[in-house]
Amino acid sequence: MLMGPGPSDVPPSILEAMAQPTVGHLDPAFIEVMDAIKDLLRYAFQTDNRLTMPVSGPGTVGMETCIANLVEPGDTVVVVENGVFGRRMKAMATRCGAEVVYVEEPWGRAIRPHVLAETLEQHPEASVVAFVHAETSTGALSDAETLVDLAHQHGCLAIVDAVTSLGGVPVRVDAWDIDAIYTGSQKCLSCTPGLSPISLSERAVNHIRNRTTPVQSWFMDLTLVMEYWDDQNGRSYHHTAPINALYGLHEALRRLHEEGLEHAWARHRQHHTALKAGLAALGLAYIVPEGERIPQLNAVTVPDGIDEAAVRHALLHEHQLEIGAGLGDMAGDIWRIGLMGHSCRAENVRTCVRAIGHALQAQGLDVDPGAAVASAEGTLASQQAATA
Amino acid sequence: MLMGPGPSDVPPSILEAMAQPTVGHLDPAFIEVMDAIKDLLRYAFQTDNRLTMPVSGPGTVGMETCIANLVEPGDTVVVVENGVFGRRMKAMATRCGAEVVYVEEPWGRAIRPHVLAETLEQHPEASVVAFVHAETSTGALSDAETLVDLAHQHGCLAIVDAVTSLGGVPVRVDAWDIDAIYTGSQKCLSCTPGLSPISLSERAVNHIRNRTTPVQSWFMDLTLVMEYWDDQNGRSYHHTAPINALYGLHEALRRLHEEGLEHAWARHRQHHTALKAGLAALGLAYIVPEGERIPQLNAVTVPDGIDEAAVRHALLHEHQLEIGAGLGDMAGDIWRIGLMGHSCRAENVRTCVRAIGHALQAQGLDVDPGAAVASAEGTLASQQAATA
Repeated sequence: MLMGPGPSDVPPSILEAMAQPTVGHLDPAFIEVMDAIKDLLRYAFQTDNRLTMPVSGPGTVGMETCIANLVEPGDTVVVVENGVFGRRMKAMATRCGAEVVYVEEPWGRAIRPHVLAETLEQHPEASVVAFVHAETSTGALSDAETLVDLAHQHGCLAIVDAVTSLGGVPVRVDAWDIDAIYTGSQKCLSCTPGLSPISLSERAVNHIRNRTTPVQSWFMDLTLVMEYWDDQNGRSYHHTAPINALYGLHEALRRLHEEGLEHAWARHRQHHTALKAGLAALGLAYIVPEGERIPQLNAVTVPDGIDEAAVRHALLHEHQLEIGAGLGDMAGDIWRIGLMGHSCRAENVRTCVRAIGHALQAQGLDVDPGAAVASAEGTLASQQAATA
Repeated sequence: MLMGPGPSDVPPSILEAMAQPTVGHLDPAFIEVMDAIKDLLRYAFQTDNRLTMPVSGPGTVGMETCIANLVEPGDTVVVVENGVFGRRMKAMATRCGAEVVYVEEPWGRAIRPHVLAETLEQHPEASVVAFVHAETSTGALSDAETLVDLAHQHGCLAIVDAVTSLGGVPVRVDAWDIDAIYTGSQKCLSCTPGLSPISLSERAVNHIRNRTTPVQSWFMDLTLVMEYWDDQNGRSYHHTAPINALYGLHEALRRLHEEGLEHAWARHRQHHTALKAGLAALGLAYIVPEGERIPQLNAVTVPDGIDEAAVRHALLHEHQLEIGAGLGDMAGDIWRIGLMGHSCRAENVRTCVRAIGHALQAQGLDVDPGAAVASAEGTLASQQAATA
């Protein structure tokens, strides 16, 4: 049972799709799968962007692809950091030769729009703003629409990390006018890890067309990648696509479309509220204030005196349950409990609350796992009654 | 039936391995899989190199990873081209800021060592030599051992593309003293596409340690990647590994180890000789001279007056058989028939010779498909008798 920060549980139908016979990467039957994936991704991202496709690599490659294509040496890039992945964006932009204006916001909090506004006023030379919508290292959700709007007011393109947000909370690429966005296959899409869907606006595509220097990575150069993924001029070989992984992504996106985004978002909220009740009954406190949290990543403080690694070890080996450790500055201080995609269901919440309760008891904490599970279940039932 | 330049047919046991439940990328059980993959890769590459692991992306990413790590801006890099993939190496090295000395050798031929030697004498400032061992665009095999030796004589590191060679013909990383080598999962390893095993010598690793500039790609920076793939300092997160794809690679490498490299090489030679007899009976001529060919990629000239795309279309739709078209300068002029890994077996040779025979007949060529198949079968039988 995967309840860490991703990968999440992969449904059997996705695993079965991945085990279908491999065909050639230019086979007409596979081109149809590619086209279906692009359409389903447009639905998932809520966009009509033509340049919408999965990068053949993990989310980190999606991040670097967006940055490397939109940034040229000497450009000023504003990176707002409120967790590990903002740091990573800074490192990548720096390696692309950017002058990075680095805004360090508190970890575990949403990014404050006024801080970005002030930064942009001080840096009229900036051409790109990059930030993380939902920080996987803390579970904080920022107001992407407002931040993107600020970027545009100051003549900047906006790059948004939606690795953990897509499929769990609203992400509206066109309505929010996002220029470049990327996600990962293994979070709320519940596919296996290894693919990174991206989408770029027409404004971003024009920006790439008007570059004066080549994209530093040949593999990530989207003008080359699109010769394979876009049929404007017939498909031609760029790299050999990961055929079977794409079968899996197709099935994951088909499932999301079948459930419907609104329903998926509601499901994540419901089980998050149930989990929260169970964790509260165990005395575990969230690091992110109410109102700035995402439902799909629940970061809680490790109680005083508890050996956090021993708890994770017990969960894994006695309950076959994985939860996440803290990352970066928060290593050792927090646990990160994922409720992503297929992992976001009543059975997982119950198992998780019960198992953590027993592990805390085993270390001498005075908690009642049964009562905590009952609290989670009661909360879920009352929410479902309210919805029905 | 996949008999193009890759992907090749994927055996059921590899597809089944990929459909096993996903676990976390830091799960101790998965760390064991990673360790087993590294050991099996050392066998496949015939090396003791510590830095031996699969890059989380297709072969193109393996190529760019080797180049980006070993090349710094301003370095002189000698790239010897004798097909499409040498061109790609040049493009990547240029984007890394290298001064590329570009040696254009004839397509469809092995690289001539004296040409490299002369180039290196003229460019004592060169620090890296890069070339393709077995060109996937033509099927020509170069003498990697001699070329690497020349590179070393002139104080250069040698980067070798073994995408199509590994598993089909001898590749001896330690005996030939190769500094950086990469391959793809979907050729003679018969795994699904999407992973690129690499191996770097201690000399290459020291070269990376002594860089004065950061590797331009954060994702491909091996000093960062190895924090996850090497256990020297405990595993830490770099990117989320493509868990299920790695299950598949593990099974593919286990199969290769079970068969044994020597046996795999002999199998590729045998079925290549049989295919060659069948193709000769159909009047099809190889573009690469005897003695410079790899068995696993058979590039033959399209006969005059034949619509090559129509033949491939007929093979795909009437015989469920994929063969490859020409690439780059050779598009439209040749077919590329793969005999890689699991695709390299008697059944495939028979089907391929028969199907091409029928397709040529349908376009009015006076050939006898039955006789061509008999010729291939007779050749295989006499070889097997000779071996037994």
